[in-house]
Amino acid sequence: MKPLGPIPDGFEVIAGELAVDGRTASSLVAEAGDTPLFVYSRARLDARVAMLRAAMPARLGLNYAVKANPFAPVIGHMAGLVDGFDIASDGELRLLEQAGIAGSRISFAGPGKRDRELEAAIRAGVTLNCESEGEARRSLATGERLGMTPRIAIRVNPSFELRGSGMKMGGGAKQFGVDESHAAALARTIIAAGAEWRGWHIFAGSQALDAAALVETQGNVLELADRLAGEVGQPVPKLNMGGGFGIPYFHGDQPVDIGTIGQALSDRFARLPELLADTDICIELGRYLVGEAGVYLTRIVDRKESHGQVFLVTDGGLHHQLAASGNFGTVVRRNYPLAIASRFAEPATEEASVVGCLCTPLDRLADQALLPRAEVGDLVAVFCAGAYGASASPMEFLGQGPARQMLV
Amino acid sequence: MKPLGPIPDGFEVIAGELAVDGRTASSLVAEAGDTPLFVYSRARLDARVAMLRAAMPARLGLNYAVKANPFAPVIGHMAGLVDGFDIASDGELRLLEQAGIAGSRISFAGPGKRDRELEAAIRAGVTLNCESEGEARRSLATGERLGMTPRIAIRVNPSFELRGSGMKMGGGAKQFGVDESHAAALARTIIAAGAEWRGWHIFAGSQALDAAALVETQGNVLELADRLAGEVGQPVPKLNMGGGFGIPYFHGDQPVDIGTIGQALSDRFARLPELLADTDICIELGRYLVGEAGVYLTRIVDRKESHGQVFLVTDGGLHHQLAASGNFGTVVRRNYPLAIASRFAEPATEEASVVGCLCTPLDRLADQALLPRAEVGDLVAVFCAGAYGASASPMEFLGQGPARQMLV
Repeated sequence: MKPLGPIPDGFEVIAGELAVDGRTASSLVAEAGDTPLFVYSRARLDARVAMLRAAMPARLGLNYAVKANPFAPVIGHMAGLVDGFDIASDGELRLLEQAGIAGSRISFAGPGKRDRELEAAIRAGVTLNCESEGEARRSLATGERLGMTPRIAIRVNPSFELRGSGMKMGGGAKQFGVDESHAAALARTIIAAGAEWRGWHIFAGSQALDAAALVETQGNVLELADRLAGEVGQPVPKLNMGGGFGIPYFHGDQPVDIGTIGQALSDRFARLPELLADTDICIELGRYLVGEAGVYLTRIVDRKESHGQVFLVTDGGLHHQLAASGNFGTVVRRNYPLAIASRFAEPATEEASVVGCLCTPLDRLADQALLPRAEVGDLVAVFCAGAYGASASPMEFLGQGPARQMLV
Repeated sequence: MKPLGPIPDGFEVIAGELAVDGRTASSLVAEAGDTPLFVYSRARLDARVAMLRAAMPARLGLNYAVKANPFAPVIGHMAGLVDGFDIASDGELRLLEQAGIAGSRISFAGPGKRDRELEAAIRAGVTLNCESEGEARRSLATGERLGMTPRIAIRVNPSFELRGSGMKMGGGAKQFGVDESHAAALARTIIAAGAEWRGWHIFAGSQALDAAALVETQGNVLELADRLAGEVGQPVPKLNMGGGFGIPYFHGDQPVDIGTIGQALSDRFARLPELLADTDICIELGRYLVGEAGVYLTRIVDRKESHGQVFLVTDGGLHHQLAASGNFGTVVRRNYPLAIASRFAEPATEEASVVGCLCTPLDRLADQALLPRAEVGDLVAVFCAGAYGASASPMEFLGQGPARQMLV
């Protein structure tokens, strides 16, 4: 038997079923029309942002990294909750424009920005988090061609990394950002060329659960921002400190201790160096804001035994939940939190593997998990499905197509 | 430095560029309108099927597994080359119907077939490769409800596996098929219920390069089919022997020795047991037919150095080439075959990593490879891109959207 990940707190049982925001899984599926279905909870988004705001210094801005969940109603709801938005493509820019979000609230990072993307961003007044000398040249040239002043920050490839992070974005040779050693010189070039100088974007890693590591990294980010500002000889207008706050996916994972991070940040904000005294400082979070607000519901299509093992075959799978299947950036597959949604109150009595409908052995949602006995027609819930699910999975694989999505 | 995978034979240089079927990479991109672009070669598809037909006994049918590449023009072209088609969803059935392919040429495998999929398949005269007792019951009930006779084969979960295969589909507890020990009893039930009995589907693994392992597995498949037929007490109308022929992706990989496989199969066909004497026998191949016929072209958007390493940042990435990035079913990342398409004749002189445009360190197309010095604007080709590329990658990730595709 293999343990399941921890189900986030606060999901209720109604009439024996998993309920999201007071509505049963089956009624949500009925409203959506069919499974598979991603359900995102407004109340959980609100609660997460409120909890974070309460823990962090008031001065700290909060950005939403759209890549975590670009579902239009989620973006629309986040617009009223966060201060800024981070995008990674012109496709994401269009989504924000459709939601009526002003370019002045948006910054654009990503190592392969095309000329047409630079143009769209400059036209919209978006801040470009510039990833290289070459991209800076292209941005300045594009601004000149358009007769517009580009807003440019520099994404710095820091020499430190975020300890214990799921993905390291700094520390050594990387495709992201400008090496520390070259950042100040490039900033001076950008300022001299007449661009609107927007400061630094320093992102060291993601999906970290250890508050001490995050506190250490934030300290390193503030020091680096100050040191680079000194080299440039100008105060920092804006500092995006990155994010990196993880969520518990796997057995034994503990939530990030946000209180500790907020306290450390308040202490640091109380004694900021002169070049950061008036800086607009923000963090950028995606997964942490939306991940636990999402549940993926899929229906059991077949129940079978093979060599004494029970398989519950669902109409969902890795085409919507690539990460949960263990096939995205992980070396060892571990189970996400998962439950039989239509028997949420029943005791777990049998070991079963929950698989998807794809014709590949990679398509597993839970491996040898202890679950209530489930039958064809039962609903399965995969938790922590709000981030990097629908949009980060190969939806067209085997002709299955996308899942339904709804914000409740 | 890390080696690149082997470029398939037969790609020419024209005017210093990679050419596909006599056309340069840049002219193909110009015709398609932009990068990233998948180019599939009709001539290579033709040559591959002809080579295979020449090596295999004339009696052996050849099926195309649509999941490998469901691009409509590819399906249309394959319709004139192969005998049958294997699908894994009603989405793939619709693609075949749109190509005018008769249901009698189609079989449908997949562990999570929904009722609506069973209905669509039965209406179209498709053979259902039944994966469980429960699915058999649902298939029979659906046929009864429609007043139609379902065509049913049984997918068997064999007790043997395909040695050295990239993905094992047999040997032990699996979500696929009916365990050997239960297959004959289920066949008798299906026959007694009045369905059209279509025999066995036995698929033991995929992406194997070792001819000896494939020969051994084919022998096991024939023996198992015969033994089960004996238990049923009826000759086998049709036998899908599975596929499993791999293609070389990585340094050191050697192509499958098709001649050896064809010879062994001819020998076996010459002395088939009575219950297989009149059986319609086929193999089912996807990757092997289309994989090496495809090239993925992407353009270099940025050239940068970080800590002394060169990064070529492209406008493509893992959103189209998940497997090439090393994030799909592989534990250790290795380089696919890749080249600077616009400098295909130039000597390799520098070590560079080719990365995608996504804002994740997972997005690598080549890691520390020896390549000709390339600049912004150059085209990169990833080879072996014809199978499990466009449709098996998270195309919407970071708002990038699908690549263009063309069949030349």
